[in-house]
Amino acid sequence: MEFITGGVTAAKGFLAAGVEAGVKYQNRKDMAMVYSETPCRAAGVFTSNVVKAAPVLWDKNVVTKSGAAQAVVVNSGIANACTGKLGMEYCEKTAQAAADALGITADSVLVCSTGVIGMQLPIEKLEAGAKELAGVLESTLEAGTLAAEAIMTTDTVSKQVAVQTQIGGKTVTLGGMCKGSGMIHPNMCTMLAFVTTDVNISKELLQEALSADVQDTFNMVSVDGDTSTNDTLLVLANGQAGNAEIVEKNADYDAFLQALHAVNETLSKKIAGDGEGATALFETKVVHADTKENAKKLAKSVITSSLTKAAIFGHDANWGRILCALGYSGVQFDPEKIELYLESSAGKMLIFQDGVAADYSEEEATKILSCPEVTAFVDMKMGGEEATAWGCDLTYDYVKINADYRS
Amino acid sequence: MEFITGGVTAAKGFLAAGVEAGVKYQNRKDMAMVYSETPCRAAGVFTSNVVKAAPVLWDKNVVTKSGAAQAVVVNSGIANACTGKLGMEYCEKTAQAAADALGITADSVLVCSTGVIGMQLPIEKLEAGAKELAGVLESTLEAGTLAAEAIMTTDTVSKQVAVQTQIGGKTVTLGGMCKGSGMIHPNMCTMLAFVTTDVNISKELLQEALSADVQDTFNMVSVDGDTSTNDTLLVLANGQAGNAEIVEKNADYDAFLQALHAVNETLSKKIAGDGEGATALFETKVVHADTKENAKKLAKSVITSSLTKAAIFGHDANWGRILCALGYSGVQFDPEKIELYLESSAGKMLIFQDGVAADYSEEEATKILSCPEVTAFVDMKMGGEEATAWGCDLTYDYVKINADYRS
Repeated sequence: MEFITGGVTAAKGFLAAGVEAGVKYQNRKDMAMVYSETPCRAAGVFTSNVVKAAPVLWDKNVVTKSGAAQAVVVNSGIANACTGKLGMEYCEKTAQAAADALGITADSVLVCSTGVIGMQLPIEKLEAGAKELAGVLESTLEAGTLAAEAIMTTDTVSKQVAVQTQIGGKTVTLGGMCKGSGMIHPNMCTMLAFVTTDVNISKELLQEALSADVQDTFNMVSVDGDTSTNDTLLVLANGQAGNAEIVEKNADYDAFLQALHAVNETLSKKIAGDGEGATALFETKVVHADTKENAKKLAKSVITSSLTKAAIFGHDANWGRILCALGYSGVQFDPEKIELYLESSAGKMLIFQDGVAADYSEEEATKILSCPEVTAFVDMKMGGEEATAWGCDLTYDYVKINADYRS
Repeated sequence: MEFITGGVTAAKGFLAAGVEAGVKYQNRKDMAMVYSETPCRAAGVFTSNVVKAAPVLWDKNVVTKSGAAQAVVVNSGIANACTGKLGMEYCEKTAQAAADALGITADSVLVCSTGVIGMQLPIEKLEAGAKELAGVLESTLEAGTLAAEAIMTTDTVSKQVAVQTQIGGKTVTLGGMCKGSGMIHPNMCTMLAFVTTDVNISKELLQEALSADVQDTFNMVSVDGDTSTNDTLLVLANGQAGNAEIVEKNADYDAFLQALHAVNETLSKKIAGDGEGATALFETKVVHADTKENAKKLAKSVITSSLTKAAIFGHDANWGRILCALGYSGVQFDPEKIELYLESSAGKMLIFQDGVAADYSEEEATKILSCPEVTAFVDMKMGGEEATAWGCDLTYDYVKINADYRS
């Protein structure tokens, strides 16, 4: 398996586009479309929030009940959440406009929205946008990039990835794009992520692979602890790679799962590193935990701690906050036994051992913490399980962005 | 029952003091003592964090095993958490120094610390401070205020309360002081709270009253979602009011519980309103929930939402974030049925109803949100249970304080 340049248009048969539809923002791209030349098997995971945006409800229906999916239409700026019956009607109208322009049926069109909650969509603009998108679809890398840019809200960079692997003697490609960057605590977020692939796989196994992998990737990301009303991760597989259909958990399935994991993990880290206002990707890796579930709880507790996040912003090795966050994670352990290291491209340093601070240099620790990617490495010494979670630092800009988001 | 002026010295027989011991801070009071002329029955609730500070372990032992408690010694600046065996030894030395100066035994001295985690206490300064404190104890209101000031860390104001009630024909007084203001998400925090009372009550009922009331008061407060290693709430009752001992749950017990609740709720709100960097107390009241537990989960989810807290700081009626936080609380409900109001001294306004935004004025909403105490009022329309939680807004100053706390 190798990483290649590209995004949602990397796999065979996929086209994309991004345009300025004027949904809420002016003078920036705010609608995207992904389209497969042939019908796809679709899998999806969605927010666990009880308050689900209208497009989440629409897409769940398409993924579970439709025979096939062939297109995704996305708008940024307005989330179409808490919008009642009108919100559902606008989903259907957007899907229908796309379907008409593409010559397919509305129930094969997935619809996603991200942005402010509670505002109604300007439906005429959505319909016009869907039509415009259908007319400018391309299979180029540039078209994928336009789509990735159009789904951004407070993101500062667009997020794409693509990998290739060999399955059954055929080259299989997976491409993805996603957006963050606030209300990110997927418990699958205003997170949207899209993976396209030309693999030939049964719908059941596609969903199973996605549902399993998301537990170790997107669900291990948190920017602010807020699980959005709109979180959606969709995978479209059109089978154009020509491999024999994957219908059981064999070596081909494993190869696909490995490639899917690479795509999901890369997208997850991009979301965390570009969290609202963030200056650093903050990773916590827990090893030698007694159970996988506990490893996850511990890792997630650290990356969601506001105090720890603020210390990372300050490049301050305030490790007591990390110990504190481990302690309130809900996991039972003996603080005397664990070891804590701080790690980045500047080095790795033992910080805490035998229940007390190790003899470390604050100056060196600050150097480690001044890198754009910082890891807290926790050795629980209890068992054989591990987990990694990804977050970001808490900065003035997070407050600025969110004290003034709607205006 | 009525509120009176005062704090930990309000009840009969209690003395207090606060001095500059130079533990970590310079030129500010950083050690306090509370002392009862006669032995007290003590009750306490402590952090649920697995990583417990040394004084938490010390105090648990005193509360559960000692015959009586008679003094509390507190230092700010250093938390004596993650300090290993030496940390425990320093607790004992501090208690012993206080006991020697007061002519009591070390096992009747409670010890509390708050401040940075992982640093060892300068024990000679603690011992000298304990001795100095014992020499300047007074029963005046001013002495109580000195003690309340000495326990502050990033708090901007000292926090005291006192109430009087009639029990069995006698005037019973309760006084309290506490400190926040970061790492505040008590699950019985770097929260410390002390209540002194002259009520005559059995030790069992004192602990039962405290454990019950804390669920609706301190445990409903969150500044940043971080449950500290040091959270401690202690109640000392010396019986000097002269009421017949409360040994069963009768009208006397109810009167005491009501007074204790008033003290605990007042202290809880003071902690929330003075959260690190906060400009506003943010209260969420949930009514007509199906169960008490669900009412609490809903209320707490809203006041801990970073996005909602940032919106409160921005005086922005971004109610979608409140709906979102209710939705990921873990409680099942129908978003179409609930009603959301925003309320403050500037008025009360319906914001959300029937699954969509109510027809409200953004200008008026901003006026409501510009007050120093703001309430989100949520009517679940599901049952008869309610709960209130207290937090604060998320501001630039929270980040500033915590990116740079140790330096």
